[in-house]
Amino acid sequence: MKIVNLAEKFDRINEYWSPRIAGELNDSYVKLVKLKGEFVWHHHENEDELFLVVQGRLCIKLRDRDLWLEAGEFVIIPKGVEHCPVAEEEAHVLLLEPKSTLNTGNVVNERTVEAGWI
Amino acid sequence: MKIVNLAEKFDRINEYWSPRIAGELNDSYVKLVKLKGEFVWHHHENEDELFLVVQGRLCIKLRDRDLWLEAGEFVIIPKGVEHCPVAEEEAHVLLLEPKSTLNTGNVVNERTVEAGWI
Repeated sequence: MKIVNLAEKFDRINEYWSPRIAGELNDSYVKLVKLKGEFVWHHHENEDELFLVVQGRLCIKLRDRDLWLEAGEFVIIPKGVEHCPVAEEEAHVLLLEPKSTLNTGNVVNERTVEAGWI
Repeated sequence: MKIVNLAEKFDRINEYWSPRIAGELNDSYVKLVKLKGEFVWHHHENEDELFLVVQGRLCIKLRDRDLWLEAGEFVIIPKGVEHCPVAEEEAHVLLLEPKSTLNTGNVVNERTVEAGWI
Protein backbone atom coordinates (compact mmCIF):
# COMPACT_ATOMS: atom_id res chain seq x y z
CA MET A 1 0.00 0.00 0.00
CA LYS A 2 2.05 2.83 -1.33
CA ILE A 3 0.94 6.41 -1.64
CA VAL A 4 1.29 7.57 -5.23
CA ASN A 5 2.00 11.25 -5.77
CA LEU A 6 0.89 12.05 -9.30
CA ALA A 7 3.22 15.01 -9.84
CA GLU A 8 6.26 13.02 -8.70
CA LYS A 9 5.41 10.17 -11.05
CA PHE A 10 4.81 12.46 -14.03
CA ASP A 11 8.18 14.12 -13.36
CA ARG A 12 9.79 10.75 -14.04
CA ILE A 13 8.05 10.13 -17.35
CA ASN A 14 10.22 11.21 -20.25
CA GLU A 15 8.34 9.81 -23.22
CA TYR A 16 5.07 10.82 -24.81
CA TRP A 17 2.36 8.26 -25.55
CA SER A 18 3.97 5.64 -23.35
CA PRO A 19 1.59 4.80 -20.47
CA ARG A 20 3.18 3.69 -17.22
CA ILE A 21 1.42 1.63 -14.59
CA ALA A 22 1.05 3.42 -11.25
CA GLY A 23 -1.39 1.10 -9.51
CA GLU A 24 -3.50 -2.00 -9.87
CA LEU A 25 -6.88 -2.76 -8.41
CA ASN A 26 -9.27 -5.56 -9.15
CA ASP A 27 -8.75 -6.32 -12.85
CA SER A 28 -7.57 -2.85 -13.79
CA TYR A 29 -4.49 -0.71 -13.96
CA VAL A 30 -4.13 2.95 -13.16
CA LYS A 31 -1.77 4.31 -15.78
CA LEU A 32 -0.10 7.69 -16.18
CA VAL A 33 0.77 9.06 -19.58
CA LYS A 34 2.20 12.27 -21.00
CA LEU A 35 0.61 13.22 -24.29
CA LYS A 36 1.69 15.68 -26.94
CA GLY A 37 0.64 15.71 -30.57
CA GLU A 38 -1.83 13.36 -32.20
CA PHE A 39 -2.25 9.65 -31.56
CA VAL A 40 -3.88 7.08 -33.84
CA TRP A 41 -7.54 6.31 -34.35
CA HIS A 42 -8.46 3.13 -32.52
CA HIS A 43 -11.06 1.50 -30.32
CA HIS A 44 -10.98 -1.08 -27.57
CA GLU A 45 -13.12 -4.09 -28.33
CA ASN A 46 -13.89 -5.07 -24.75
CA GLU A 47 -12.68 -2.32 -22.47
CA ASP A 48 -14.14 0.98 -21.32
CA GLU A 49 -11.38 3.51 -20.72
CA LEU A 50 -11.26 6.48 -18.37
CA PHE A 51 -9.23 9.61 -19.17
CA LEU A 52 -8.68 12.06 -16.29
CA VAL A 53 -6.69 15.16 -17.19
CA VAL A 54 -4.29 16.03 -14.38
CA GLN A 55 -2.46 18.86 -16.15
CA GLY A 56 -2.90 20.60 -19.49
CA ARG A 57 -5.68 20.12 -21.99
CA LEU A 58 -6.72 17.11 -24.02
CA CYS A 59 -8.91 16.71 -27.06
CA ILE A 60 -10.40 13.29 -27.68
CA LYS A 61 -11.63 13.18 -31.24
CA LEU A 62 -14.66 11.02 -31.87
CA ARG A 63 -16.04 10.30 -35.31
CA ASP A 64 -18.93 12.72 -34.78
CA ARG A 65 -17.45 15.33 -32.44
CA ASP A 66 -14.49 16.44 -30.37
CA LEU A 67 -14.36 16.21 -26.57
CA TRP A 68 -12.22 18.90 -24.97
CA LEU A 69 -11.03 18.14 -21.46
CA GLU A 70 -9.33 20.52 -19.07
CA ALA A 71 -7.36 19.62 -15.94
CA GLY A 72 -9.74 18.24 -13.33
CA GLU A 73 -12.09 16.69 -15.89
CA PHE A 74 -12.60 13.10 -16.93
CA VAL A 75 -14.48 11.19 -19.56
CA ILE A 76 -15.12 7.49 -20.08
CA ILE A 77 -14.88 6.14 -23.61
CA PRO A 78 -17.05 3.04 -23.84
CA LYS A 79 -15.80 -0.12 -25.49
CA GLY A 80 -16.14 -0.11 -29.25
CA VAL A 81 -16.10 3.68 -29.65
CA GLU A 82 -13.45 4.93 -32.05
CA HIS A 83 -11.36 7.74 -30.63
CA CYS A 84 -8.15 9.62 -31.28
CA PRO A 85 -6.51 11.62 -28.48
CA VAL A 86 -4.80 14.88 -29.44
CA ALA A 87 -2.87 17.29 -27.21
CA GLU A 88 -1.70 20.54 -28.73
CA GLU A 89 0.55 21.11 -25.71
CA GLU A 90 1.88 18.58 -23.22
CA ALA A 91 -0.90 17.03 -21.17
CA HIS A 92 -0.66 14.74 -18.15
CA VAL A 93 -3.39 12.14 -18.09
CA LEU A 94 -4.44 9.40 -15.68
CA LEU A 95 -5.95 6.37 -17.39
CA LEU A 96 -7.99 3.66 -15.84
CA GLU A 97 -8.57 0.55 -17.88
CA PRO A 98 -8.64 -3.26 -17.64
CA LYS A 99 -5.26 -4.94 -17.53
CA SER A 100 -5.91 -6.43 -20.94
CA THR A 101 -6.02 -3.00 -22.61
CA LEU A 102 -3.51 -2.23 -25.35
CA ASN A 103 -2.75 1.47 -25.86
CA THR A 104 -3.62 1.31 -29.55
CA GLY A 105 -6.64 -0.92 -29.03
CA ASN A 106 -7.56 -2.77 -32.22
CA VAL A 107 -4.58 -1.30 -34.08
CA VAL A 108 -1.06 -2.68 -33.76
CA ASN A 109 1.59 -0.44 -35.25
CA GLU A 110 4.71 1.54 -34.35
CA ARG A 111 2.72 3.44 -31.67
CA THR A 112 1.86 0.22 -29.83
CA VAL A 113 3.75 -0.12 -26.54
CA GLU A 114 3.50 -2.38 -23.55
CA ALA A 115 3.11 -0.44 -20.33
CA GLY A 116 5.66 -0.96 -17.57
CA TRP A 117 5.44 0.09 -13.93
CA ILE A 118 6.68 3.42 -12.69
CA MET B 1 -19.96 10.25 -23.15
CA LYS B 2 -20.17 13.21 -20.85
CA ILE B 3 -17.26 15.23 -19.60
CA VAL B 4 -17.23 15.27 -15.81
CA ASN B 5 -15.77 18.34 -14.14
CA LEU B 6 -14.75 17.29 -10.65
CA ALA B 7 -15.01 20.73 -9.04
CA GLU B 8 -18.52 21.26 -10.42
CA LYS B 9 -19.66 17.90 -9.12
CA PHE B 10 -18.15 18.43 -5.67
CA ASP B 11 -19.92 21.82 -5.50
CA ARG B 12 -23.19 19.94 -5.68
CA ILE B 13 -22.43 17.50 -2.88
CA ASN B 14 -23.88 18.72 0.40
CA GLU B 15 -23.41 15.70 2.63
CA TYR B 16 -20.32 14.14 4.12
CA TRP B 17 -19.62 10.41 3.81
CA SER B 18 -22.21 9.97 1.10
CA PRO B 19 -20.47 8.84 -2.10
CA ARG B 20 -22.11 9.84 -5.38
CA ILE B 21 -21.59 8.03 -8.66
CA ALA B 22 -19.95 10.18 -11.33
CA GLY B 23 -19.09 7.53 -13.90
CA GLU B 24 -19.18 3.83 -14.68
CA LEU B 25 -16.71 1.75 -16.61
CA ASN B 26 -16.42 -1.97 -16.96
CA ASP B 27 -17.63 -3.35 -13.60
CA SER B 28 -16.70 -0.29 -11.58
CA TYR B 29 -18.04 3.06 -10.50
CA VAL B 30 -16.16 6.32 -10.15
CA LYS B 31 -17.57 7.93 -7.03
CA LEU B 32 -17.06 11.35 -5.50
CA VAL B 33 -17.30 11.90 -1.79
CA LYS B 34 -16.80 14.75 0.66
CA LEU B 35 -15.25 13.63 3.91
CA LYS B 36 -15.00 15.33 7.26
CA GLY B 37 -14.46 13.70 10.61
CA GLU B 38 -13.93 10.01 11.25
CA PHE B 39 -15.63 7.11 9.49
CA VAL B 40 -15.98 3.53 10.76
CA TRP B 41 -13.47 0.71 10.66
CA HIS B 42 -14.36 -1.71 7.90
CA HIS B 43 -12.95 -3.78 5.08
CA HIS B 44 -14.22 -4.92 1.71
CA GLU B 45 -14.24 -8.67 1.36
CA ASN B 46 -13.84 -8.81 -2.42
CA GLU B 47 -13.03 -5.33 -3.65
CA ASP B 48 -9.86 -3.29 -3.91
CA GLU B 49 -10.62 0.40 -3.48
CA LEU B 50 -8.81 3.44 -4.83
CA PHE B 51 -8.79 6.77 -2.96
CA LEU B 52 -7.58 9.81 -4.93
CA VAL B 53 -7.53 13.06 -2.96
CA VAL B 54 -8.72 15.93 -5.15
CA GLN B 55 -8.77 18.61 -2.45
CA GLY B 56 -7.75 18.73 1.19
CA ARG B 57 -5.98 16.03 3.16
CA LEU B 58 -7.03 12.53 4.11
CA CYS B 59 -5.77 10.08 6.68
CA ILE B 60 -6.55 6.43 6.11
CA LYS B 61 -5.93 4.59 9.35
CA LEU B 62 -4.74 1.02 9.02
CA ARG B 63 -4.35 -1.33 11.96
CA ASP B 64 -0.58 -0.96 11.89
CA ARG B 65 -0.07 2.59 10.58
CA ASP B 66 -1.67 5.74 9.20
CA LEU B 67 -1.54 6.75 5.54
CA TRP B 68 -1.61 10.51 5.02
CA LEU B 69 -2.69 11.63 1.57
CA GLU B 70 -2.50 15.14 0.16
CA ALA B 71 -4.32 16.47 -2.89
CA GLY B 72 -2.90 14.83 -6.01
CA GLU B 73 -2.11 11.56 -4.26
CA PHE B 74 -3.84 8.19 -4.37
CA VAL B 75 -3.63 4.89 -2.61
CA ILE B 76 -5.25 1.53 -3.28
CA ILE B 77 -6.55 -0.41 -0.29
CA PRO B 78 -6.56 -4.10 -1.20
CA LYS B 79 -9.53 -6.31 -0.43
CA GLY B 80 -9.60 -7.61 3.10
CA VAL B 81 -7.52 -4.79 4.61
CA GLU B 82 -9.21 -3.02 7.50
CA HIS B 83 -9.18 0.75 7.19
CA CYS B 84 -10.80 3.82 8.67
CA PRO B 85 -10.73 7.11 6.75
CA VAL B 86 -10.38 10.31 8.79
CA ALA B 87 -10.39 13.90 7.57
CA GLU B 88 -9.65 16.63 10.06
CA GLU B 89 -10.87 19.24 7.58
CA GLU B 90 -13.16 18.78 4.59
CA ALA B 91 -11.56 16.62 1.93
CA HIS B 92 -12.78 15.88 -1.60
CA VAL B 93 -12.02 12.34 -2.68
CA LEU B 94 -12.49 10.35 -5.88
CA LEU B 95 -13.13 6.66 -5.29
CA LEU B 96 -12.85 3.88 -7.77
CA GLU B 97 -14.35 0.56 -6.80
CA PRO B 98 -16.41 -2.34 -8.15
CA LYS B 99 -20.13 -1.69 -8.43
CA SER B 100 -20.76 -4.21 -5.68
CA THR B 101 -18.88 -2.12 -3.09
CA LEU B 102 -20.77 -0.90 -0.02
CA ASN B 103 -19.33 2.21 1.62
CA THR B 104 -19.06 0.52 5.00
CA GLY B 105 -17.81 -2.77 3.57
CA ASN B 106 -18.41 -5.65 5.96
CA VAL B 107 -20.18 -3.38 8.45
CA VAL B 108 -23.81 -2.33 8.07
CA ASN B 109 -24.86 0.46 10.39
CA GLU B 110 -26.19 4.00 10.40
CA ARG B 111 -23.23 5.12 8.23
CA THR B 112 -24.18 2.71 5.45
CA VAL B 113 -25.61 4.48 2.41
CA GLU B 114 -26.42 3.49 -1.13
CA ALA B 115 -24.69 5.71 -3.64
CA GLY B 116 -26.79 7.56 -6.19
CA TRP B 117 -25.68 9.33 -9.34
CA ILE B 118 -24.69 12.96 -9.42
